[in-house]
This record gives sequence, C-alpha cells and structure tokens, in this order.
Amino acid sequence: MIKASVIGGTGYAGQELLRILYRHPEVEVVSVGSRSFAGQPLKDIYRNYENVTDALCETADMNELVEKSDVIFMALPHGIASKQVTGEVLKKTKIIDLGADFRLKDVDIYEQWYKVNHYNKDLLKEAVYGLCELHREDIRGARLLSNPGCYTTCSILSLAPLLKNHLVDPQSIIIDAKSGVTGAGRSSDTAFSYCEVNESIKAYKVGSHRHTPEIEQELGLLSGTDLKLLFTPHLTPMNRGILALCYASLTSDMDEEGLRQVYRDFYRDEYFVRLTEDKLPETKWVKGSNYCDIGLKVDKRTNRVIVVGAIDNLVKGAAGQAVQNMNLMFGFDEKTGIDFITDFPV
Amino acid sequence: MIKASVIGGTGYAGQELLRILYRHPEVEVVSVGSRSFAGQPLKDIYRNYENVTDALCETADMNELVEKSDVIFMALPHGIASKQVTGEVLKKTKIIDLGADFRLKDVDIYEQWYKVNHYNKDLLKEAVYGLCELHREDIRGARLLSNPGCYTTCSILSLAPLLKNHLVDPQSIIIDAKSGVTGAGRSSDTAFSYCEVNESIKAYKVGSHRHTPEIEQELGLLSGTDLKLLFTPHLTPMNRGILALCYASLTSDMDEEGLRQVYRDFYRDEYFVRLTEDKLPETKWVKGSNYCDIGLKVDKRTNRVIVVGAIDNLVKGAAGQAVQNMNLMFGFDEKTGIDFITDFPV
Amino acid sequence: MIKASVIGGTGYAGQELLRILYRHPEVEVVSVGSRSFAGQPLKDIYRNYENVTDALCETADMNELVEKSDVIFMALPHGIASKQVTGEVLKKTKIIDLGADFRLKDVDIYEQWYKVNHYNKDLLKEAVYGLCELHREDIRGARLLSNPGCYTTCSILSLAPLLKNHLVDPQSIIIDAKSGVTGAGRSSDTAFSYCEVNESIKAYKVGSHRHTPEIEQELGLLSGTDLKLLFTPHLTPMNRGILALCYASLTSDMDEEGLRQVYRDFYRDEYFVRLTEDKLPETKWVKGSNYCDIGLKVDKRTNRVIVVGAIDNLVKGAAGQAVQNMNLMFGFDEKTGIDFITDFPV
Amino acid sequence: MIKASVIGGTGYAGQELLRILYRHPEVEVVSVGSRSFAGQPLKDIYRNYENVTDALCETADMNELVEKSDVIFMALPHGIASKQVTGEVLKKTKIIDLGADFRLKDVDIYEQWYKVNHYNKDLLKEAVYGLCELHREDIRGARLLSNPGCYTTCSILSLAPLLKNHLVDPQSIIIDAKSGVTGAGRSSDTAFSYCEVNESIKAYKVGSHRHTPEIEQELGLLSGTDLKLLFTPHLTPMNRGILALCYASLTSDMDEEGLRQVYRDFYRDEYFVRLTEDKLPETKWVKGSNYCDIGLKVDKRTNRVIVVGAIDNLVKGAAGQAVQNMNLMFGFDEKTGIDFITDFPV
Repeated sequence: MIKASVIGGTGYAGQELLRILYRHPEVEVVSVGSRSFAGQPLKDIYRNYENVTDALCETADMNELVEKSDVIFMALPHGIASKQVTGEVLKKTKIIDLGADFRLKDVDIYEQWYKVNHYNKDLLKEAVYGLCELHREDIRGARLLSNPGCYTTCSILSLAPLLKNHLVDPQSIIIDAKSGVTGAGRSSDTAFSYCEVNESIKAYKVGSHRHTPEIEQELGLLSGTDLKLLFTPHLTPMNRGILALCYASLTSDMDEEGLRQVYRDFYRDEYFVRLTEDKLPETKWVKGSNYCDIGLKVDKRTNRVIVVGAIDNLVKGAAGQAVQNMNLMFGFDEKTGIDFITDFPV
Repeated sequence: MIKASVIGGTGYAGQELLRILYRHPEVEVVSVGSRSFAGQPLKDIYRNYENVTDALCETADMNELVEKSDVIFMALPHGIASKQVTGEVLKKTKIIDLGADFRLKDVDIYEQWYKVNHYNKDLLKEAVYGLCELHREDIRGARLLSNPGCYTTCSILSLAPLLKNHLVDPQSIIIDAKSGVTGAGRSSDTAFSYCEVNESIKAYKVGSHRHTPEIEQELGLLSGTDLKLLFTPHLTPMNRGILALCYASLTSDMDEEGLRQVYRDFYRDEYFVRLTEDKLPETKWVKGSNYCDIGLKVDKRTNRVIVVGAIDNLVKGAAGQAVQNMNLMFGFDEKTGIDFITDFPV
Repeated sequence: MIKASVIGGTGYAGQELLRILYRHPEVEVVSVGSRSFAGQPLKDIYRNYENVTDALCETADMNELVEKSDVIFMALPHGIASKQVTGEVLKKTKIIDLGADFRLKDVDIYEQWYKVNHYNKDLLKEAVYGLCELHREDIRGARLLSNPGCYTTCSILSLAPLLKNHLVDPQSIIIDAKSGVTGAGRSSDTAFSYCEVNESIKAYKVGSHRHTPEIEQELGLLSGTDLKLLFTPHLTPMNRGILALCYASLTSDMDEEGLRQVYRDFYRDEYFVRLTEDKLPETKWVKGSNYCDIGLKVDKRTNRVIVVGAIDNLVKGAAGQAVQNMNLMFGFDEKTGIDFITDFPV
Repeated sequence: MIKASVIGGTGYAGQELLRILYRHPEVEVVSVGSRSFAGQPLKDIYRNYENVTDALCETADMNELVEKSDVIFMALPHGIASKQVTGEVLKKTKIIDLGADFRLKDVDIYEQWYKVNHYNKDLLKEAVYGLCELHREDIRGARLLSNPGCYTTCSILSLAPLLKNHLVDPQSIIIDAKSGVTGAGRSSDTAFSYCEVNESIKAYKVGSHRHTPEIEQELGLLSGTDLKLLFTPHLTPMNRGILALCYASLTSDMDEEGLRQVYRDFYRDEYFVRLTEDKLPETKWVKGSNYCDIGLKVDKRTNRVIVVGAIDNLVKGAAGQAVQNMNLMFGFDEKTGIDFITDFPV
C-alpha cells in the first residue's frame, strides 16, 4: 500500500486519475489538490464521489506533500511543474507529471513551442518519458516520470513499428487526429459551451499543436532520424476518445499482411495494445479502457500506409497511463487497477 | 418596407431574430445592438452572416434608435427593458420586447418572481401579451408588445382549449417540460460546457421557474379562475426544442376523439398550430419552424388528460413569434418571412 | 467461485451483465448465450471483449445449462422465460430473470399488459421480486429471482418512503420518466437510427407502458392500498440513464427537511441509494454505477412533493442489480464486483 | 413556373430537395416518387410536411413523368438511373441525377468502382458534371445533369485553385474527410443505430471510397495531369456536415497570403464559396446553407498546404447544388430558393 497525492485533481484528467486511484488495491490517496476548489469536498464538485470519499480539496505545500506521499501526480498546466519539481523533491518522493514540462529532452524546443522558460532544465535528462510500451525498463527505475500527451500516445504507438523497422519515409508523415471535447479540459470558455460544440466538427492548431515536437522526438529516436511531420488535431462532438489517422509513404513493397505481422511482432507482449487486424479501430471500443487499438490499410494506388490508432484520451492518454507507469515504478503488476473492460454503449 | 432595430442581437434569440429579419421581404435591419461586441462585425461573432451583412454591432442610444426605427426588438435580460421603454419611446416607435418585463399584468407578481423593481409600471396595462393565437386583435393595434416566454408559449397553447372549455380541474395542472440547451442562452458557465451537459438530463428550478406565473396568468384568463399550477423544466442534451407534457384531471367524461374535436375547433384557423391527431409531437418535427405541434392522450385509468406540445424554443418560443407579432402589428400577412419547413435531420 | 451462464448475452443488458461478470472475483462465466450470433466469438460482436475472452456465443440447451451452471441469467424478451423456467430447472440451479415474466404476482395483470400467456404460473408465487432495498431477506433465499425493470427500479425507490409512511395520496401519483436510448435495446429499426433520435425528444406509450403495473404492485404493497398511477416514459437523446420525476399530493404538512429525514431513515443502511439532499439528481452522476440517486422538492403553492430519481438503466436498472441480487443469493458481499465510481465525463 | 418531379423523394437527400422545391418561387412539385412508401402521404413519413403538402408518394412510370415534368430529379442508389435515363427521355425533359451513374466520364472506371454495368454509356459524353463553380456555362445548356457527390463537391472546390494554378504536386494529395451521419442515408442497419454511432468516430472505406475517382477526374481536368490521390472518409457523431482536410506538397514557395490571393481570384464571382481568410471553416457555419467555406494553412516545416473545406452534405453536397444547377438550366437567378442563412445553433 503506497500513499499517493494528486495536484490538480479537479481537472478532467486529475479527476479520472482519482477515480482510478480510489479503487486501486495498492494505493491510499492522501491529498486531493485543487487551487480552484480548496476547502471544498471533492464530492461537491464531482458528485460521482458521493459515497466514495469525503476528502476535501486542498492547496497543499509541496514540502508537506513530499513528506507524506510515496508518489505525487501532477496534473497541471505547463510551466508549473518545471518550477515545483526540484532535485530536493526527487530525493524524497517519486513524481508522475501528466503535464508537458518534462517531456521534451531539448529545452530549446520546449521553450520555443511552449513560450515559457524551463526552471529545472537539469532534470530533463533524468526524466523518463512514460510511454510504457517503449520505455518500460527505464520507467521501472524512474524518480521523475513524464507522462505522455494524449494525441502523442496514440500517434507514437500507431507509428512506432513502421519507424523502428524503417518501412516508411520518415519525412512523409501526416497525422490527422480527432479528439473528444474532454481533451480541451474543463472549461468555462463559450467556445466550449454545449451549443457551440454540439453537431459540428473543426480542425484547430493545424501544423502548430504542441504535441508535434513530442511525437517527432520519439519517432526520431525509433528511426534514428531527425524527422519533421505534420500534425492536425480536430475537436469532435463527443466527450471522449482520440482517433488518429497516420499517413506515410511506404519505402518497402510490403502488403497489409506483411505490415500487420510487423505490428504483431512489435507488440507481441503488450497487454494494452490490441491489433484490430482486418477491421479498423473505433473510439467506442476503447472508451473508458486503457487500451490502444491499432489497425492499418495499405493504399497500393498511392503506395501509402494508413495506420489508425484509437485511445481514450483520459485513460491511456492521461490517467490510465499514469497509473500504468506508477504500477511499473512500484513493482506492481502493470495492469493493477486499470484492467477495465470498455462499457458499451456509454 | 419597414426599418427594424434589434437590441441584444448577439444572444441566441437575438441572433435568430436577425436571421429571420435579414430574409424578411418587408424589413430593413437598421441597427444590430450588442453591448458585448460593440464595434465588431456581426459576421465575426456569428460566421453564418458572412456574405449576408457587413453590419457592425453597436450600443445605440435609445433616442437615436427611436428616430430611425419603425420597430425596435429588445432581446435583453429582465429588468432592462422596464427602464428603457417609456411613454416617450412609444410615441415614436413600436416596441417588441422578447424579455419578461411586460408580460405579467400584476406588478407585484413580477417583482416577487423576478426580484427587481419595475420602472414603468404604468405601461403594463397598455402592453399586449403577444401570443398571437390568443390575442390577435389586440396585437394588431399594439405599440408595446410583450413576446411570451418559450416554455410559456408551448404550455399555454397546449392547455388553452381545455381551460377555455372548462374540461379539466384548473388546480390539477402539472407541466413537465423539457428544453434544449439554447434555452439557457449563450453561456460561458462551466455548467453549460459541452462535457457537462452532453449525455445527461436534469430537472432544474422545480416549482420555482419564472415562467410559472406567466402561464398561470394566461390560463387563468381563459378559465376565469385564479389557478396555481406546478411547472418543472428540464435541461435536455440537444440544441433546440421544447416538449411540454401537461397533465390535468378531467372534469368531463370526454374521450380522446371528443377532446381532439375541441382542439380542432379552437385552432381551426391557426396556421402555426398543428394537431398531431393519433400521434404525439416530437421536437424534431418543429425544429427551425414556427409551428406548435399539439397532441393528446386520455388515461382512463386515472381520469387524466395528457397534452403534449412541441415548439422550437428560439422560433415559436422567441424570434419567430416576435416576427409573427410584427407582421400583425404592421399589417403584413402573418406568415411573411417565417413560413419555414423544418429541415430534417438537422 | 460460482459458475454463471447468460442467456441473451448480446443485447445491451446481457452484454452489460457479461462485462460485470467477467470482472467479478467470485464468478466464472461458463456460457454466453445468443441465438442471433451463435457460433461467433463474443469479441467479434462487441469488440470491447478483445483481450477479455475468446468465448463463442452459443444457443445452449436448457438441460445442459442447468447441469453446468450455479446460476443462469436470462436477458430475453418477455414470454420466453415463462416457458423455459420450470420447477425442474429450479431444482438444479438458480435463475435470475432480467425479463418481465415473473415480476407481476397477478397472472391476469401480466397477461393483460403483455398480451401473451404465462406458461408457469405456479412459479409466480415462489418468484422473488429482486429490488434489493425492499426485499433483501427474501432474495437471499430465492431460487427464482425476478429482476425489476429499469423505469420500475427508479420509480419505486423514489417513492417507497412516501408510500410506506402514508405521506402522499396514493391515487395522485404521476411519474414522468426520461430514458436514454439503450433502454430500447439493440435495434435495427429506422426509428432508432442515429439521425432520427439525435437532437430530439419524445414521449411514448403515454399511460400504457408495461412497467406501470409493476410499479403499482410494489407501491401498493408498501402502502397497503390498491393504487393506480400515471406513468409516462420519454426517449431522450443520450445513450444511458433514467431520470424519473415523481409527482404526488402531500397528505401531511411536512416540509422538505422533514421529508428528507424520512428518506434518510428509510435508506439509512442502503449502500446503493444516495440522497442528494438540497441538490437534485442528474443522470450523469450515476452513469456506469449501481447507484440510485434520489432528491426531492416540496411545492407549497400546490401542496405537492416532487421526488427525482436517477439510475443507469443498464446497471441499477438491469445488469448491476442482477449481480447485486446474485451477490445476496450466494452470500457474497452485496457490493462485490459492482462498486463502480461513475466515470465522468463519459 | 416549371414542373418538377422527384424520384426517390423519401431518402434524406430527396427529402431535402423537396423541402427546397416546395418553397422555390419558380417550381411546382408534380410528383413525389418513393417505392418504399408508395401510396402514403409524404407528411406521414416526414411529419415536417404537415401543413405543407398533402402529396402522396408514388412510383410513377418514367413515361408518364417525362410528359408532365419540365425537370426530373433522381435521388436513387447507383445503377438505376443508368437504366432509366435514355436518349428518348432526354428529348422530352431535363434530368438532374443526384446519383453517381453519370459522373464519371470513363465507363471503365465507373464499372470498376461501382461493380455494375452501365446501361447508357453513350449518354456519358453528353452528361454535364454539375459543379456549378467549375462548369457553369455547360450546365446552362445541359439536358442531362449529373450532380456531384457530397465529399466530392467539398474536396474539389477546396483544391481546384491549387491544381488549376499548378501550385502543388498533384500526386501528393491526401484528403481526410469527416461526414455527419445523414451521409449514410436513411438506414435501418444496426450499425447506424443511435447507440452505435453516438459518442464515437471511425474511418471507413479508407482508400476505397467511390468518390475517389470522381475527385481525381475533376482535379485531373483542372491540372491537366492524370493524378492519383488518397481519400479517407469518417463517420462523425453529428447529423450533417462535411469537413475535408486536403493535404498537398507545395511546389512553389508561396506563403499563406499568396495562396489566399489565388483563391480570392479563383472564386471572385462565386456567391456560394466563402473564403474564411485567417480562420478555418467549421461545419456549423454552413449547416443548412448552400455555402462551401474554404480556408487554408501553410506548414512551412514540411512545405505543405492544408486546405480545409466545409459544406452541408445534404445542401451544397446534394439537394442545394441540384437546385443551383436547376436554376442555371432554366435561366433563373442562381440563388433562387437556396439563399439560406445558416440557422445557429441548430
């Protein structure tokens, strides 16, 4: 039984994390952090916690938290964790950061895309990028775990086997991703009000979304190339789910079955990656679960492969993967507390 | 060709009104009022106006507006129109108020339910309640037209024939109404954000919604009784539409066919009321139109009648009815510019 | 560890049941029954079962099933279970019927509302009505458990304390209930296609829904009266959830706090009933959970109480309650395998 | 005043067409064709026609229809119009075919993609492809008008200026398009039932959708090249709207402003094409209108242009464009009867 704290527990990702942690057999939640709702019972903000916990939201001091926590989850806007996580903190507790501050190894790229300074650059080297399927061994020993972004998780897992095996032109990649509205966080912006979002779809931040360099970093590592790709996200009228269509030009003449075998080999032992074989993923089949579903098609007419990935943005794309990382970091079975069957239709 | 101004043109009701007015063959829009967006082109706020108008939003002075307008529509929160509409104003132009300030004849009831003072009580007597199907002749001569509320329109039209003909116990009425989310207006409140509203239904202001006294006033007039009813609204996960289920205890032993004949007689010449006979209304069939669909069932087991009414809250429940009133006030054909066929599925 | 079979496992309720059973620590699923999909892997029909089970759907013979099952769940259209469940069957295994065949004690009422003959009337007396909060002790010893309907569960739980304590006129009850679309089952009817249901709400079977006599039976038992009530269901554009507004005339002068205390006393030890106190239930807070949330308002103007109940129709309204019953029947902790925290926003 | 018939009037596109025609000032509808609903009043199938028309659906004989119609609209599955439209028919009336049979000039490509024989190949040459913005002069004189597909219209209009001006590599095009559910037609397939479609997104027919050769034909004509592109459609949980993201590699070093000027020049006189300048299109702003909104971004990092197009699939993508074509063919003002302002939020 370990003691866990969550800073930023009342955003959608933080709340999802709490939902998982409160049912995790190896975890006791010792602090629910929320600046906006400090002093209020969590169950008054999210009424699904009625009968679950009487915990009050608090704005705990980092020094206190490190004393009482075996692990601290941070679910905060970028720029805050890079201030709060220091070498001193890491001596006393483990950190799992759901934000972006420790994802990019190159601080210049971070500062260029996020338009803020990084306050603990020296920790970037130590920080482990928590995509379990790619960095499991490093994760086990990590003190500072940087949990990947939602679009990122889906995109990298979809493309990794192709890049690793040099089957596509790394400079040809286009990722066209569609996200549910929870991806935008809990918002009071009119632009995210029901009537403005319902019954419409739009692309946003075309070519300029901050998950781009993160995907490039990881795919670059896999392929051994410095690559540039085009990433386009969409706001889709549904609560949850990411569907990523990844387009790339084939450099081999492998057919669909050949490529699928590459994926089967690559993900052979991965519990949370499901290959959909001759079908393609749909977000409804992963909703509420920690699975990443992946399928692919080859378009012989244009010699391209289209890989389709689907995740729940708040589970495998955030809270579920954070707990998967925690499980690894503390030596629990990787599936503990996150082996959900998607509830359907939900 | 008359000149029309709209004050509060960038709320959902105001915008719907502009959409109708810009295609009305007898109307020229001379001012689009909006305090929030003053100085900005309407088409920058609502991009459906691209190619339609280059009008800028403005916060026009009432004195200026009365000079250049044959009619001024006011689509404002309650408490403002009661200040701005004066006897002087009415000497120079006609007013159609989509708000609540001039709907209740009894100023005490107004002040009790709305918790504000009324600043021009003397005009309450002159104000005509703009439910065309009930007050057509008075509307034709009106200078100050008070446009009914959305729930109100649907509820009164659904029950009017029963009350007028003394077929139900006036003290037995329960109205259980469901509204789309546009009914709450254009909002930046987190409570109306997509993820909080989507895939859920709730009742609100049970027994305390401000449309209650308005319904009581009109049904009281029809029945010649001072009645009290219970009104319950719901927030339904859809953009538009109101469905009102009106329950009442029968005082006669009329069967369904008998009651339907009463409705046919009552609404014989009403273009915008459609009786659904052996089917019941659904909001999809009235969406985008100025129709009110009405159907009914008798429950012999409990000796009750259930009348079901459906309207589009922004059309017959607001902007469409406002234009229907304008048509009457200026001697145009009542259907001019609002004879829409519901677009389906939309 | 008990062995469970599900007949009718590919409808929405059956599938929800399987989802729960496959994660229940005391259950092994030994047969997934489906006439429509016999011979096909469950995971091909519901792709959320990928990585969960390779079970094939089958149309098992009842004689075989009773031999290998400690409990058989039946999730079938009405009229089938009444043929298949016999005294012989009950000697060998326990039955939990999610259908309607054994809910009504009076076979005449059953045959009148369901328009079919009942083939094992003699078992009606033995059958236990599985509303755990009302019949827990009988459930523990049951061989034939009749699981309540979805609307029924929500309505009875909402009204039980009032009827039991004679606080309302039993003949004054009106229940206006709104259900998500899963309530209609998995359907290929155009009337339930996305575009026909989306963005619209309608009432159906007003005064004639088959859950009516079931609610009357249970409330009649509680109040000791033969009562008739009016029940109206609605199809709401969302996947899951039931919200029931229950209107009744007060016979005492108790205020809201007094009535709430009655509810607190009545449900003191009930884990799966949550009282929302000064707030009202919303379906989003119970979705995916086995909770029934209940709140109330008093309308002094008309001397009525309005009780609002909310459940997930597929969980507390079907599969969750079925497992709650199973837990009781086999002596497990009542919460085992169904103690879900609502996932939000989902 | 011309006489128009519609064959296939009860599909979603046919119905949308009727809605427009019944309010078109120059048109009298003389026949509503429907094999499925022959003999039934249109208003019984689509209740929005109550108060609009008492027309009965009929399965009129083509010989009769040509005698009484100035124009016949055909909204049928592929393979039927190619049988029914003959040289004899065209001598007597004008045909506007909303189906696919006369869109592809190369009959081999038609038969290869549609897997049926074409029965009147000799008419393919005469048939005019009814994308008004590209073929206006030919349309004016057409007897046989082939109305473009929905995805097609949006994709071609989005890319035409680039191909015409040789600004992109014609072999580099990827179109990732998202459609509302009406695009699948009125369906009783479980796969399109509310609960299966709601709250999920999926790609389908990746690289194999039949609109692909149609887009290639028109873009090939514009560019003077035989090009192959990759087209991927998605089913999006909303009723209406298409959003197409068109990716292509730039062959010039033009920046965004330069490219936008190309679009402004190309569409200078086009009423129904709106350029969104520094914003990007969203489907909500075109819903219910005949507009095609187009915007673009340049991604300098990968030297690609992303053009975003949005239309209402049932209006500009089907019925609205059909009427736009009719207006041209009969010498009416091109906007007559289709100059709708998008109703918002709807």
